[in-house]
Amino acid sequence: MKIALAQINLIIGDFEGNAAKHIRLIEEARRRGADLIVFPELSITGYPPRDFLEFKDFVARANATLERLKPYSRDIAVIAGVPTVNPRKEGKDLFNSAVFLYEGRELRRQHKTLLPTYDIFDEARYFEPADEWKPVEFKGKKIALTICEDIWNLGNENPLYTVNPVEKFLPYRPDLLINISASPFDYLHAKERIRVLKANVRAYGLPIVYVNHTGAQTDLIFDGGSLVMTPSGTVYRELPFFTEALEIIDSDALDQTDREREKPEIPLIYRALVTGIRDYFGKIGLKSAVLGLSGGIDSAVTAVLAAEALGSSHVEALLMPSRYSSESSVKDALKLAENLGISAKIISIEKPFQAVEEELRSFFVPKGITLENIQPRLRMIYLMAFANQYGHILLNTSNKSELAVGYGTLYGDLAGGLSVLGDVYKTRVYELARYINRDEEIIPRNIIDKPPSAELKPDQKDTDTLPPYEILDPILYRYIEERKGPREIITEGFDPELVKRVLRMVNRNEFKRYQTAPVLRVTPKAFGMGRRMPIVAKYLE
Amino acid sequence: MKIALAQINLIIGDFEGNAAKHIRLIEEARRRGADLIVFPELSITGYPPRDFLEFKDFVARANATLERLKPYSRDIAVIAGVPTVNPRKEGKDLFNSAVFLYEGRELRRQHKTLLPTYDIFDEARYFEPADEWKPVEFKGKKIALTICEDIWNLGNENPLYTVNPVEKFLPYRPDLLINISASPFDYLHAKERIRVLKANVRAYGLPIVYVNHTGAQTDLIFDGGSLVMTPSGTVYRELPFFTEALEIIDSDALDQTDREREKPEIPLIYRALVTGIRDYFGKIGLKSAVLGLSGGIDSAVTAVLAAEALGSSHVEALLMPSRYSSESSVKDALKLAENLGISAKIISIEKPFQAVEEELRSFFVPKGITLENIQPRLRMIYLMAFANQYGHILLNTSNKSELAVGYGTLYGDLAGGLSVLGDVYKTRVYELARYINRDEEIIPRNIIDKPPSAELKPDQKDTDTLPPYEILDPILYRYIEERKGPREIITEGFDPELVKRVLRMVNRNEFKRYQTAPVLRVTPKAFGMGRRMPIVAKYLE
Repeated sequence: MKIALAQINLIIGDFEGNAAKHIRLIEEARRRGADLIVFPELSITGYPPRDFLEFKDFVARANATLERLKPYSRDIAVIAGVPTVNPRKEGKDLFNSAVFLYEGRELRRQHKTLLPTYDIFDEARYFEPADEWKPVEFKGKKIALTICEDIWNLGNENPLYTVNPVEKFLPYRPDLLINISASPFDYLHAKERIRVLKANVRAYGLPIVYVNHTGAQTDLIFDGGSLVMTPSGTVYRELPFFTEALEIIDSDALDQTDREREKPEIPLIYRALVTGIRDYFGKIGLKSAVLGLSGGIDSAVTAVLAAEALGSSHVEALLMPSRYSSESSVKDALKLAENLGISAKIISIEKPFQAVEEELRSFFVPKGITLENIQPRLRMIYLMAFANQYGHILLNTSNKSELAVGYGTLYGDLAGGLSVLGDVYKTRVYELARYINRDEEIIPRNIIDKPPSAELKPDQKDTDTLPPYEILDPILYRYIEERKGPREIITEGFDPELVKRVLRMVNRNEFKRYQTAPVLRVTPKAFGMGRRMPIVAKYLE
Repeated sequence: MKIALAQINLIIGDFEGNAAKHIRLIEEARRRGADLIVFPELSITGYPPRDFLEFKDFVARANATLERLKPYSRDIAVIAGVPTVNPRKEGKDLFNSAVFLYEGRELRRQHKTLLPTYDIFDEARYFEPADEWKPVEFKGKKIALTICEDIWNLGNENPLYTVNPVEKFLPYRPDLLINISASPFDYLHAKERIRVLKANVRAYGLPIVYVNHTGAQTDLIFDGGSLVMTPSGTVYRELPFFTEALEIIDSDALDQTDREREKPEIPLIYRALVTGIRDYFGKIGLKSAVLGLSGGIDSAVTAVLAAEALGSSHVEALLMPSRYSSESSVKDALKLAENLGISAKIISIEKPFQAVEEELRSFFVPKGITLENIQPRLRMIYLMAFANQYGHILLNTSNKSELAVGYGTLYGDLAGGLSVLGDVYKTRVYELARYINRDEEIIPRNIIDKPPSAELKPDQKDTDTLPPYEILDPILYRYIEERKGPREIITEGFDPELVKRVLRMVNRNEFKRYQTAPVLRVTPKAFGMGRRMPIVAKYLE
C-alpha cells in the first residue's frame, strides 16, 4: 500500500488555510499514486488549540472543515485529526480523534486513549478517552489507528497509564500501526521517539507509520521527523526536521536499510530556535524584530538566530550604553552587527536616566538595585518605541540560567514578545556561539571570551551575585529538569549552602517568570506552560 | 458525634507552619470536646501545590508531616488532606487523599475519585483516581469520606464524569458524608455550593459536613463558607466567609433551623479582593504597596481595597501627571488620598518624557501610539523605583474590560506584582465604587462621574477607541465567561461588526495578558491559569 506522510506546519484555528493545505496535499499525493495520505494529530485545528476547544463554535467549524475534505477522498483514503463530539451526556464533551475518510465517506473514527496531562500537555482538560478500539480495513489490510501518546506507554519502568491501547487492537490481528502525532521538540525528543517506536515494533511485530507536525506554535516547536519503522525496528524512512514534507512509501516493500538521520544536539537546538522565531513572526504576520545589543553573548546569539530566521534586513539592533557600559561592549556589538549585516543604532540612555534620577531625588537618592533597574527599563522604553514605530517585535535575550535565578529586571531586560534563549542555559549559549562560529568568526571572539556582566554599575560581573555558570547550571538542571529537592542535589556533592541559596532564588523569582514572554521550548522542561509552580509558597525557603 | 470544622488559611509548602496550625487546632478541638476534627483538602501542603507535587522530596515532607500529627490523634480523630504515593507502578504516582487518624494510627486513606481538570484545576496532571471506596467506622457511625469534586457530579444536565463516587459508598449504608474541599471563590460559587450539597443530600439522604480552605493563594481566593447540611437540605451551619474558623457541631443533634448566610455579590467581591491583597503581601512577607493614582476610577477603587487590606499607612500613591493630564485628575486623586489617609506624592514625568522624545528624534518623530506608550512606561519606572527603594509591591490597577481588549500599555500601566481588578469588568468597578461610597463619599464623586480616559493625548476618552462599557462588557462576558462564538453572540442582537471587532481585540491581545501579573480571581472565568488560549492563532480573525 502506498502511504503518503504529510508532515505539515499549521496555524491554529485557521480553518480556511488548514483546509486548503489538506486539499492541496491530498491532490498531490493522489497524483503521485498514493492509496492513503496521513496527516498529523488535530491536523484540522492545529496543535495545541487549548481553550478554543471549549467553544462549541470552534468545534463545529473544525467538523465542518472535515466535511469539506470528504469529496477529496474519492480515490485516495485520508487520515486527518479533529476534535469530535462525545455523543454521551456523561464525561468530557470531546474526543481527540483520527478520522479515516475514503470514497467520500467516513469509514472510521478512532479516539485517542492516552491523554497526556503533564508538562505542556493539558489533554484531560478537554477530552474523554477512547473506550472502543477496532482497526480500519482498507485494501485488504487492517490498520490500527493510534494518536500520539497512545504508543508511549511502553518500555517505561514507571508507566504513566494503566492501559496500552495498542493491545486492544491485537485480537483483530492488524497488519500496520499508524500513529498521528503532535509531539513537540526538545533536544532529546527525536532519539526518544525512535526508542518508543522500537519498543512498539518489538512488542507487537507491526510496521509503524508515524506522522508529526512541524513548525512552531508560539513556545512549542514541532520538529517533524515523521517516521516509517519496519517490524524489525529499522528506520526505513525519517522525514526531515523543521520543514514541511510529503513523502510516499510502499508499506509492502520496506527494506532493511537503516535510514535514520543524525541528531546532533546543538545544531538541532539552533534550527529549533530559528524555526521558533520564524513561525512566531510569520504566523502573527509581522516581519521584523528589534533587540538590544549589549555586547554580551546572549544578545549576540539572539541576533544571529533572528537574522537567520527573518533575514538581516529585518533585524534592527539598538546599542544603548550608559555610564557603566565598557567601550569594548559598543565596539563588539557594532562588529557583530556588521558581520550579520543588520542595522545597528546607538542611542544613549544617559539623559533620561539623569532626568529620572533627578526627579526621584526629591524623595530619595536612588542607589543599589533601585538605580540599577532604571537603566534596563529605560532601554525597554527605547526598544518598545522602535517596535511601536516600525511594527517590530521586541526579542527578549535572557537565557535560562538568568530567568531561573531572576537575574534580570522585570519590565527591563526581561521585556519582549518572545524569549529566544529562555530555555537555553548560559553554558549552552556558549555552545551555540561556538557552533555559530564554526566556520568563521560571526560573533566577535571578545564577546565569547569576556566575563559576563550586566554593566549596571562600575566593574560589575555576574559572579558578584551568582556562582560561576559552570556550577550554577548543573544545580539548576537538577532542580528544574530532574525535579530533585535540595537534599538529593546536596547528596550529589554540591555545596549545601549554595544549593539552598540557588533554589531559594529560583522559587522567589516565580513572580518574574510569570510575567515574561513565551519561551521557545527546546528542553523537556522549559519555563512557561510546562512548569507550573506556585508564586507564593514556602517550600525550600 | 461532635465534629470540629477547621476552616483554615495555609501557606503552600510551609510544612512547619501548617503542621503547627493543625496541632494547635486539634488540641483546641479536643479541649472543646470534639470527637473528630476535619481539615480541608490537601491541608498538609496547602492548595494548589501545583508542580511541587512532581518533587518526590515535597511529597516525602508532606507525608512526614502527616506522621507528626498521628500522636495528637490519641483522643480525637483527625481527617487531614495529603498527597499519598500510589503503590502501583502503573498510573500516576500520587493520590489526592483524605487520611483518617485515630488513637495514633491511620484508620483509613480514601483517595479522590473525580479529579477536576478545567479552569484553574490541573488535578489529572498529578493524581490517579480512586478505585476503592469504603466508609470509615468511627464511634458506631459509618462515614463516607469524599474530596471536593467527588460530590460535584450530581444535578448537572451534562455531567463531566462517568462515575459518582458517593454511590460507591451506598452499599455500606453510611451514616454521614464528609467532604474536604479546596474550592476557590467566585461571586456565584457560595450559592452553587449550596445547590450541589442539596442535590447530594436529596439523592443520598445523608447529612453532609463540608470543610473548605479560606484565604488567598496568589490569584486564587478561598472563601471558606464551610457547611453542615441536614438530610432534608437545611443549612444547619455555614461558617463565615474569608476568615479562619473552628466550629464544633453535634451531628446527632442537627435541628431544622436554616442558618444560611446572605451572599450579596458586590460585598463578597469586595471582601475577596481585600483578602487577595492581604494574603499576597502577608504570605510573601511584605507589608506595603505602591500604586499610581491617576484620578480615574480603577486606581481609586484599587487604593481603597489596598488601604483596607494593608492599612492606610502601608499604601503609597504616586500622582504622575503629564502634559495631557487634566487638572481635576490631580485634585481628585489628592482628595481620595486624603479621604483614605494614604501618602500621596506628585512626581512629574515631563522631563524624562522630553529627554526620551529628544533622543528618539534623532531617528524618528515619535507620535501616535509610540508617543502615548512612553508615558505609562515612565510612570512604571517611578513606581518600580519606589517599590525597589521601600520594599513595596506595585499594585496593578487595570480592570477586566481593559485587559480583555488590550487597552493598556505593556510594561506601563499593565505592570505590577498583583492585578487587583483584572477580573472585574469596568461596569462592576463602578458598582464597587458605589458600594465603597455607600455611607460616605470616600471616592470623590467626580472620579465616578467623569468619562473614563487614559489621558495620553489631548482630550482622549476611552470611547475614542472602545465602545461604551455598557455595550463592551456584555459582549466580553459572553465571549469570556460563556465561551460563545461570534455567531451566537450576534444572534443575541449585538452589532455584528462590533462583535467581530471586540473578539479580534481579545484574541490579538493574548500576548499582553500572557505577561501581566496574577489576577485576583472573583468570577468563574478569570484571566490567568484558568483561561488558556493560544497566543498565535487565527480563529475569529
